[in-house]
Amino acid sequence: MTVKTEYITTETKGNRDLVDLTPKLREIVKKCGLVNGIITAFAPGSTAGITTIEYEPGLTKDISIFLESLLPYAGNYHHHETWHDDNGSSHLQASFIGPSITVPVVDGDLTLGTWQQVVLIDCDTRPRRRRVVVQMLF
Amino acid sequence: MTVKTEYITTETKGNRDLVDLTPKLREIVKKCGLVNGIITAFAPGSTAGITTIEYEPGLTKDISIFLESLLPYAGNYHHHETWHDDNGSSHLQASFIGPSITVPVVDGDLTLGTWQQVVLIDCDTRPRRRRVVVQMLF
Amino acid sequence: MTVKTEYITTETKGNRDLVDLTPKLREIVKKCGLVNGIITAFAPGSTAGITTIEYEPGLTKDISIFLESLLPYAGNYHHHETWHDDNGSSHLQASFIGPSITVPVVDGDLTLGTWQQVVLIDCDTRPRRRRVVVQMLF
Repeated sequence: MTVKTEYITTETKGNRDLVDLTPKLREIVKKCGLVNGIITAFAPGSTAGITTIEYEPGLTKDISIFLESLLPYAGNYHHHETWHDDNGSSHLQASFIGPSITVPVVDGDLTLGTWQQVVLIDCDTRPRRRRVVVQMLF
Repeated sequence: MTVKTEYITTETKGNRDLVDLTPKLREIVKKCGLVNGIITAFAPGSTAGITTIEYEPGLTKDISIFLESLLPYAGNYHHHETWHDDNGSSHLQASFIGPSITVPVVDGDLTLGTWQQVVLIDCDTRPRRRRVVVQMLF
Repeated sequence: MTVKTEYITTETKGNRDLVDLTPKLREIVKKCGLVNGIITAFAPGSTAGITTIEYEPGLTKDISIFLESLLPYAGNYHHHETWHDDNGSSHLQASFIGPSITVPVVDGDLTLGTWQQVVLIDCDTRPRRRRVVVQMLF
Protein backbone atom coordinates (compact mmCIF):
# COMPACT_ATOMS: atom_id res chain seq x y z
CA MET A 1 0.00 0.00 0.00
CA THR A 2 0.98 3.59 -0.53
CA VAL A 3 0.59 6.24 2.17
CA LYS A 4 1.24 9.81 1.05
CA THR A 5 0.93 12.91 3.20
CA GLU A 6 0.65 16.46 1.95
CA TYR A 7 -0.30 19.77 3.57
CA ILE A 8 -2.51 22.70 2.60
CA THR A 9 -1.50 25.93 4.29
CA THR A 10 -4.03 28.74 4.30
CA GLU A 11 -4.55 32.10 5.99
CA THR A 12 -8.04 32.65 7.39
CA LYS A 13 -9.91 35.61 8.84
CA GLY A 14 -11.32 33.52 11.70
CA ASN A 15 -14.95 34.14 12.76
CA ARG A 16 -16.27 31.21 10.73
CA ASP A 17 -14.33 32.11 7.62
CA LEU A 18 -14.90 29.43 4.98
CA VAL A 19 -11.97 28.21 2.84
CA ASP A 20 -12.62 25.97 -0.18
CA LEU A 21 -10.01 23.20 -0.04
CA THR A 22 -11.24 21.38 -3.16
CA PRO A 23 -8.92 22.83 -5.84
CA LYS A 24 -5.83 22.03 -3.72
CA LEU A 25 -7.15 18.55 -2.91
CA ARG A 26 -7.62 17.88 -6.64
CA GLU A 27 -4.07 19.08 -7.32
CA ILE A 28 -2.71 16.78 -4.60
CA VAL A 29 -4.64 13.74 -5.90
CA LYS A 30 -3.20 14.32 -9.37
CA LYS A 31 0.35 15.05 -8.21
CA CYS A 32 0.46 11.96 -5.97
CA GLY A 33 -0.98 9.62 -8.58
CA LEU A 34 -3.98 8.61 -6.46
CA VAL A 35 -6.40 6.79 -8.79
CA ASN A 36 -8.53 4.68 -6.43
CA GLY A 37 -8.34 5.06 -2.65
CA ILE A 38 -9.23 7.43 0.16
CA ILE A 39 -8.16 10.96 0.97
CA THR A 40 -8.50 12.28 4.52
CA ALA A 41 -8.29 16.02 5.26
CA PHE A 42 -7.69 16.79 8.93
CA ALA A 43 -7.53 20.17 10.68
CA PRO A 44 -5.07 20.21 13.59
CA GLY A 45 -6.24 22.58 16.31
CA SER A 46 -9.49 22.69 18.24
CA THR A 47 -11.14 25.78 16.76
CA ALA A 48 -11.54 24.77 13.10
CA GLY A 49 -13.69 22.15 11.41
CA ILE A 50 -13.93 20.44 8.04
CA THR A 51 -17.12 19.45 6.20
CA THR A 52 -18.65 19.76 2.73
CA ILE A 53 -21.01 22.45 1.49
CA GLU A 54 -21.95 24.12 -1.78
CA TYR A 55 -19.32 26.85 -1.72
CA GLU A 56 -21.24 29.93 -2.86
CA PRO A 57 -21.55 33.38 -1.22
CA GLY A 58 -25.08 32.82 0.14
CA LEU A 59 -24.36 29.61 2.05
CA THR A 60 -21.02 31.02 3.17
CA LYS A 61 -22.99 33.68 5.04
CA ASP A 62 -25.72 31.27 6.14
CA ILE A 63 -23.41 28.80 7.84
CA SER A 64 -21.59 31.60 9.64
CA ILE A 65 -24.87 33.12 10.85
CA PHE A 66 -26.18 29.73 11.91
CA LEU A 67 -23.09 28.80 13.94
CA GLU A 68 -23.09 32.20 15.65
CA SER A 69 -26.79 31.88 16.53
CA LEU A 70 -26.31 28.34 17.84
CA LEU A 71 -23.23 29.14 19.92
CA PRO A 72 -22.94 32.91 20.26
CA TYR A 73 -19.61 34.62 20.82
CA ALA A 74 -21.14 36.61 23.68
CA GLY A 75 -22.44 33.52 25.51
CA ASN A 76 -21.17 32.40 28.90
CA TYR A 77 -18.59 29.65 28.58
CA HIS A 78 -16.70 27.96 31.42
CA HIS A 79 -13.78 27.76 28.99
CA HIS A 80 -13.22 31.50 29.53
CA GLU A 81 -12.66 30.88 33.24
CA THR A 82 -9.93 28.34 32.46
CA TRP A 83 -7.85 30.53 30.17
CA HIS A 84 -9.34 34.05 30.44
CA ASP A 85 -9.91 33.55 26.75
CA ASP A 86 -12.78 34.66 24.49
CA ASN A 87 -13.19 31.70 22.16
CA GLY A 88 -15.41 29.21 24.01
CA SER A 89 -17.95 29.42 21.19
CA SER A 90 -15.19 28.67 18.63
CA HIS A 91 -14.22 25.45 20.39
CA LEU A 92 -17.77 24.16 20.61
CA GLN A 93 -18.59 25.10 17.00
CA ALA A 94 -15.46 23.25 15.82
CA SER A 95 -16.15 20.11 17.90
CA PHE A 96 -19.59 20.10 16.45
CA ILE A 97 -18.52 20.32 12.80
CA GLY A 98 -15.69 17.85 13.43
CA PRO A 99 -12.03 18.18 12.38
CA SER A 100 -11.84 15.72 9.53
CA ILE A 101 -13.39 14.28 6.42
CA THR A 102 -12.66 11.17 4.37
CA VAL A 103 -13.59 11.17 0.68
CA PRO A 104 -13.31 8.18 -1.67
CA VAL A 105 -11.35 8.82 -4.86
CA VAL A 106 -12.43 6.85 -7.94
CA ASP A 107 -10.71 6.95 -11.34
CA GLY A 108 -8.49 9.81 -10.25
CA ASP A 109 -11.18 12.16 -8.96
CA LEU A 110 -12.82 12.95 -5.62
CA THR A 111 -16.37 11.54 -5.61
CA LEU A 112 -17.91 14.90 -4.71
CA GLY A 113 -21.18 16.09 -6.20
CA THR A 114 -21.02 18.90 -8.75
CA TRP A 115 -22.12 21.50 -6.22
CA GLN A 116 -20.23 20.07 -3.26
CA GLN A 117 -16.92 21.38 -1.98
CA VAL A 118 -14.66 20.36 0.91
CA VAL A 119 -14.32 23.38 3.20
CA LEU A 120 -12.37 24.41 6.26
CA ILE A 121 -14.41 26.52 8.68
CA ASP A 122 -12.21 28.59 10.93
CA CYS A 123 -14.27 29.26 14.04
CA ASP A 124 -11.56 31.07 16.00
CA THR A 125 -12.09 34.70 17.00
CA ARG A 126 -9.06 36.03 15.13
CA PRO A 127 -7.15 35.45 11.88
CA ARG A 128 -5.17 32.23 11.88
CA ARG A 129 -2.71 30.38 9.70
CA ARG A 130 -3.96 26.80 9.27
CA ARG A 131 -2.03 23.78 8.01
CA VAL A 132 -4.45 21.06 6.98
CA VAL A 133 -3.06 17.51 6.90
CA VAL A 134 -4.00 15.60 3.75
CA GLN A 135 -3.33 11.90 3.80
CA MET A 136 -3.99 9.41 1.01
CA LEU A 137 -4.12 5.61 1.16
CA PHE A 138 -4.17 3.65 -2.08
CA MET B 1 -3.61 -3.49 -0.48
CA THR B 2 -7.04 -3.93 -1.97
CA VAL B 3 -9.28 -0.98 -2.82
CA LYS B 4 -12.82 -1.86 -3.85
CA THR B 5 -15.59 0.57 -4.71
CA GLU B 6 -19.29 -0.19 -4.82
CA TYR B 7 -22.43 1.95 -4.99
CA ILE B 8 -25.79 1.93 -3.22
CA THR B 9 -28.53 3.57 -5.24
CA THR B 10 -31.68 4.57 -3.41
CA GLU B 11 -34.78 6.66 -4.00
CA THR B 12 -35.67 9.03 -1.17
CA LYS B 13 -38.65 11.23 -0.35
CA GLY B 14 -36.42 14.14 0.66
CA ASN B 15 -37.46 16.25 3.67
CA ARG B 16 -35.11 14.40 6.02
CA ASP B 17 -36.13 10.97 4.82
CA LEU B 18 -33.99 8.36 6.56
CA VAL B 19 -32.64 5.37 4.60
CA ASP B 20 -31.02 2.44 6.42
CA LEU B 21 -27.86 1.57 4.45
CA THR B 22 -26.76 -1.25 6.78
CA PRO B 23 -28.19 -4.31 4.99
CA LYS B 24 -26.61 -3.23 1.69
CA LEU B 25 -23.30 -2.43 3.40
CA ARG B 26 -23.27 -5.93 4.96
CA GLU B 27 -23.96 -7.46 1.53
CA ILE B 28 -21.10 -5.46 0.00
CA VAL B 29 -18.65 -6.45 2.74
CA LYS B 30 -19.48 -10.13 2.16
CA LYS B 31 -19.45 -9.95 -1.64
CA CYS B 32 -16.10 -8.14 -1.72
CA GLY B 33 -14.42 -10.45 0.80
CA LEU B 34 -13.61 -7.68 3.28
CA VAL B 35 -12.55 -9.39 6.52
CA ASN B 36 -10.49 -6.74 8.34
CA GLY B 37 -10.29 -3.16 7.10
CA ILE B 38 -12.32 0.00 6.75
CA ILE B 39 -15.48 0.80 4.84
CA THR B 40 -16.30 4.42 3.98
CA ALA B 41 -19.80 5.43 2.87
CA PHE B 42 -19.92 8.85 1.20
CA ALA B 43 -22.93 10.80 -0.07
CA PRO B 44 -22.14 12.89 -3.16
CA GLY B 45 -24.23 16.07 -3.22
CA SER B 46 -24.59 18.81 -0.67
CA THR B 47 -28.10 18.17 0.67
CA ALA B 48 -27.69 14.70 2.20
CA GLY B 49 -25.74 13.43 5.18
CA ILE B 50 -24.61 10.11 6.61
CA THR B 51 -24.43 9.16 10.30
CA THR B 52 -25.50 6.30 12.59
CA ILE B 53 -28.68 6.05 14.61
CA GLU B 54 -30.95 3.36 16.01
CA TYR B 55 -33.19 2.94 12.99
CA GLU B 56 -36.67 2.70 14.49
CA PRO B 57 -39.84 4.69 13.69
CA GLY B 58 -39.66 6.93 16.78
CA LEU B 59 -36.13 8.22 16.23
CA THR B 60 -36.79 8.49 12.51
CA LYS B 61 -39.44 11.09 13.36
CA ASP B 62 -37.37 12.67 16.14
CA ILE B 63 -34.33 13.40 14.00
CA SER B 64 -36.51 14.88 11.26
CA ILE B 65 -38.35 17.11 13.76
CA PHE B 66 -35.09 18.15 15.37
CA LEU B 67 -33.37 19.13 12.11
CA GLU B 68 -36.44 21.10 11.00
CA SER B 69 -36.60 22.94 14.35
CA LEU B 70 -32.87 23.69 14.24
CA LEU B 71 -32.84 24.91 10.64
CA PRO B 72 -36.45 25.52 9.54
CA TYR B 73 -37.49 25.28 5.90
CA ALA B 74 -39.24 28.65 6.23
CA GLY B 75 -36.16 30.46 7.58
CA ASN B 76 -34.37 33.22 5.71
CA TYR B 77 -31.31 31.93 3.90
CA HIS B 78 -28.94 33.93 1.71
CA HIS B 79 -28.65 30.78 -0.40
CA HIS B 80 -32.12 31.50 -1.79
CA GLU B 81 -30.88 34.83 -3.16
CA THR B 82 -28.07 33.07 -5.05
CA TRP B 83 -30.20 30.50 -6.86
CA HIS B 84 -33.83 31.52 -6.19
CA ASP B 85 -33.99 28.13 -4.59
CA ASP B 86 -35.87 26.90 -1.51
CA ASN B 87 -33.40 24.49 0.06
CA GLY B 88 -31.05 26.63 2.17
CA SER B 89 -32.08 24.67 5.26
CA SER B 90 -31.29 21.38 3.45
CA HIS B 91 -27.74 22.47 2.70
CA LEU B 92 -27.02 23.54 6.27
CA GLN B 93 -28.58 20.43 7.80
CA ALA B 94 -26.46 18.24 5.50
CA SER B 95 -23.20 20.11 6.22
CA PHE B 96 -23.96 19.70 9.85
CA ILE B 97 -24.54 15.92 9.74
CA GLY B 98 -21.57 15.49 7.39
CA PRO B 99 -21.46 13.50 4.14
CA SER B 100 -19.45 10.47 5.16
CA ILE B 101 -18.75 7.80 7.72
CA THR B 102 -15.90 5.35 8.17
CA VAL B 103 -16.59 2.09 10.01
CA PRO B 104 -13.99 -0.52 10.95
CA VAL B 105 -14.77 -4.06 9.78
CA VAL B 106 -13.47 -6.88 12.00
CA ASP B 107 -13.79 -10.61 11.23
CA GLY B 108 -16.05 -9.90 8.28
CA ASP B 109 -18.61 -7.69 10.03
CA LEU B 110 -19.14 -3.98 10.57
CA THR B 111 -18.35 -3.10 14.20
CA LEU B 112 -21.75 -1.47 14.76
CA GLY B 113 -23.64 -1.86 18.01
CA THR B 114 -26.74 -4.07 17.96
CA TRP B 115 -29.09 -1.08 17.82
CA GLN B 116 -26.93 1.07 15.57
CA GLN B 117 -27.49 1.47 11.84
CA VAL B 118 -25.70 3.51 9.17
CA VAL B 119 -28.24 5.90 7.67
CA LEU B 120 -28.49 8.37 4.83
CA ILE B 121 -30.52 11.45 5.72
CA ASP B 122 -31.85 13.18 2.64
CA CYS B 123 -32.38 16.80 3.66
CA ASP B 124 -33.43 18.08 0.24
CA THR B 125 -36.90 19.54 -0.23
CA ARG B 126 -38.00 17.04 -2.88
CA PRO B 127 -37.60 13.34 -3.73
CA ARG B 128 -34.14 12.48 -4.97
CA ARG B 129 -32.26 9.52 -6.37
CA ARG B 130 -29.02 9.10 -4.38
CA ARG B 131 -25.96 7.08 -5.29
CA VAL B 132 -23.83 6.50 -2.20
CA VAL B 133 -20.17 5.68 -2.80
CA VAL B 134 -18.92 2.75 -0.71
CA GLN B 135 -15.19 2.24 -0.64
CA MET B 136 -13.27 -0.47 1.18
CA LEU B 137 -9.57 -0.66 2.03
CA PHE B 138 -8.15 -3.92 3.28
CA MET C 1 -0.84 -3.26 3.75
CA THR C 2 -1.19 -3.76 7.46
CA VAL C 3 -4.56 -3.65 9.22
CA LYS C 4 -4.43 -3.72 13.01
CA THR C 5 -7.39 -3.54 15.36
CA GLU C 6 -7.25 -2.67 19.05
CA TYR C 7 -9.87 -1.74 21.64
CA ILE C 8 -10.13 0.88 24.36
CA THR C 9 -12.47 -0.11 27.17
CA THR C 10 -13.67 2.63 29.47
CA GLU C 11 -16.31 3.14 32.15
CA THR C 12 -18.34 6.33 31.80
CA LYS C 13 -20.83 8.15 33.99
CA GLY C 14 -23.18 8.78 31.03
CA ASN C 15 -24.95 12.15 30.83
CA ARG C 16 -22.45 13.55 28.35
CA ASP C 17 -19.43 12.36 30.31
CA LEU C 18 -16.26 13.17 28.34
CA VAL C 19 -13.43 10.62 28.15
CA ASP C 20 -10.04 11.62 26.71
CA LEU C 21 -8.98 8.76 24.41
CA THR C 22 -5.71 10.40 23.31
CA PRO C 23 -3.22 8.80 25.72
CA LYS C 24 -4.51 5.30 24.88
CA LEU C 25 -4.49 6.08 21.14
CA ARG C 26 -0.85 7.22 21.41
CA GLU C 27 0.04 3.99 23.25
CA ILE C 28 -1.67 1.91 20.55
CA VAL C 29 0.10 3.76 17.71
CA LYS C 30 3.46 3.08 19.36
CA LYS C 31 2.72 -0.53 20.28
CA CYS C 32 1.49 -1.39 16.77
CA GLY C 33 4.39 0.31 14.99
CA LEU C 34 2.18 2.72 13.04
CA VAL C 35 4.50 5.35 11.54
CA ASN C 36 2.52 6.77 8.59
CA GLY C 37 -1.14 5.89 8.03
CA ILE C 38 -4.60 6.42 9.42
CA ILE C 39 -6.18 5.57 12.73
CA THR C 40 -9.97 5.33 13.03
CA ALA C 41 -11.68 5.35 16.43
CA PHE C 42 -15.28 4.12 16.32
CA ALA C 43 -17.86 3.96 19.11
CA PRO C 44 -20.23 0.99 18.75
CA GLY C 45 -23.67 1.83 20.13
CA SER C 46 -26.04 4.63 19.27
CA THR C 47 -25.77 6.84 22.36
CA ALA C 48 -22.09 7.85 22.28
CA GLY C 49 -20.11 10.03 19.89
CA ILE C 50 -16.46 10.75 19.10
CA THR C 51 -14.97 14.13 18.17
CA THR C 52 -12.02 16.32 19.13
CA ILE C 53 -11.97 19.13 21.69
CA GLU C 54 -9.52 20.85 23.99
CA TYR C 55 -9.91 18.54 26.97
CA GLU C 56 -10.02 20.94 29.90
CA PRO C 57 -12.59 21.26 32.74
CA GLY C 58 -14.28 24.38 31.34
CA LEU C 59 -15.06 22.99 27.88
CA THR C 60 -15.98 19.65 29.42
CA LYS C 61 -18.81 21.47 31.20
CA ASP C 62 -19.63 23.69 28.21
CA ILE C 63 -20.16 20.86 25.75
CA SER C 64 -22.37 19.01 28.22
CA ILE C 65 -24.47 22.11 28.89
CA PHE C 66 -24.71 22.84 25.17
CA LEU C 67 -25.88 19.34 24.20
CA GLU C 68 -28.46 19.33 27.01
CA SER C 69 -29.78 22.74 25.93
CA LEU C 70 -29.94 21.67 22.28
CA LEU C 71 -31.65 18.34 22.97
CA PRO C 72 -32.99 18.37 26.53
CA TYR C 73 -33.46 15.16 28.51
CA ALA C 74 -36.98 16.30 29.42
CA GLY C 75 -38.04 16.91 25.80
CA ASN C 76 -40.73 14.89 24.06
CA TYR C 77 -39.25 12.17 21.88
CA HIS C 78 -41.14 9.60 19.82
CA HIS C 79 -38.33 7.21 20.70
CA HIS C 80 -39.79 6.93 24.20
CA GLU C 81 -43.04 5.60 22.73
CA THR C 82 -41.15 2.84 20.90
CA TRP C 83 -39.25 1.47 23.90
CA HIS C 84 -40.73 3.22 26.96
CA ASP C 85 -37.22 4.44 27.36
CA ASP C 86 -35.86 7.80 28.59
CA ASN C 87 -32.88 8.35 26.30
CA GLY C 88 -34.27 9.91 23.12
CA SER C 89 -32.07 12.97 23.68
CA SER C 90 -29.01 10.70 24.04
CA HIS C 91 -29.60 9.10 20.64
CA LEU C 92 -30.02 12.40 18.84
CA GLN C 93 -27.00 14.00 20.54
CA ALA C 94 -24.85 10.99 19.55
CA SER C 95 -26.05 10.94 15.91
CA PHE C 96 -25.25 14.57 15.77
CA ILE C 97 -21.68 14.28 17.08
CA GLY C 98 -21.12 11.16 14.97
CA PRO C 99 -19.64 7.83 16.09
CA SER C 100 -16.20 7.95 14.52
CA ILE C 101 -13.11 9.92 13.73
CA THR C 102 -10.19 9.32 11.39
CA VAL C 103 -6.84 10.94 12.21
CA PRO C 104 -3.73 10.85 10.01
CA VAL C 105 -0.57 9.62 11.74
CA VAL C 106 2.71 11.09 10.50
CA ASP C 107 6.17 10.08 11.73
CA GLY C 108 4.68 7.99 14.50
CA ASP C 109 2.38 10.59 16.02
CA LEU C 110 -1.26 11.62 15.66
CA THR C 111 -1.45 14.92 13.79
CA LEU C 112 -3.49 16.58 16.55
CA GLY C 113 -2.93 20.18 17.58
CA THR C 114 -1.30 20.79 20.94
CA TRP C 115 -4.61 21.62 22.61
CA GLN C 116 -6.70 19.07 20.75
CA GLN C 117 -7.74 15.71 22.16
CA VAL C 118 -9.83 12.85 20.77
CA VAL C 119 -12.79 12.36 23.10
CA LEU C 120 -15.66 9.97 23.59
CA ILE C 121 -18.88 11.69 24.68
CA ASP C 122 -21.23 9.30 26.39
CA CYS C 123 -24.69 10.76 25.93
CA ASP C 124 -26.61 7.92 27.54
CA THR C 125 -28.66 8.60 30.68
CA ARG C 126 -26.78 6.13 32.88
CA PRO C 127 -23.24 4.86 33.45
CA ARG C 128 -22.02 2.60 30.65
CA ARG C 129 -19.02 0.45 29.82
CA ARG C 130 -17.81 1.41 26.33
CA ARG C 131 -15.47 -0.54 24.06
CA VAL C 132 -14.11 1.77 21.36
CA VAL C 133 -12.81 0.07 18.20
CA VAL C 134 -9.45 1.43 17.06
CA GLN C 135 -8.34 0.39 13.61
CA MET C 136 -5.10 1.33 11.86
CA LEU C 137 -4.20 1.08 8.17
CA PHE C 138 -0.60 1.58 7.15
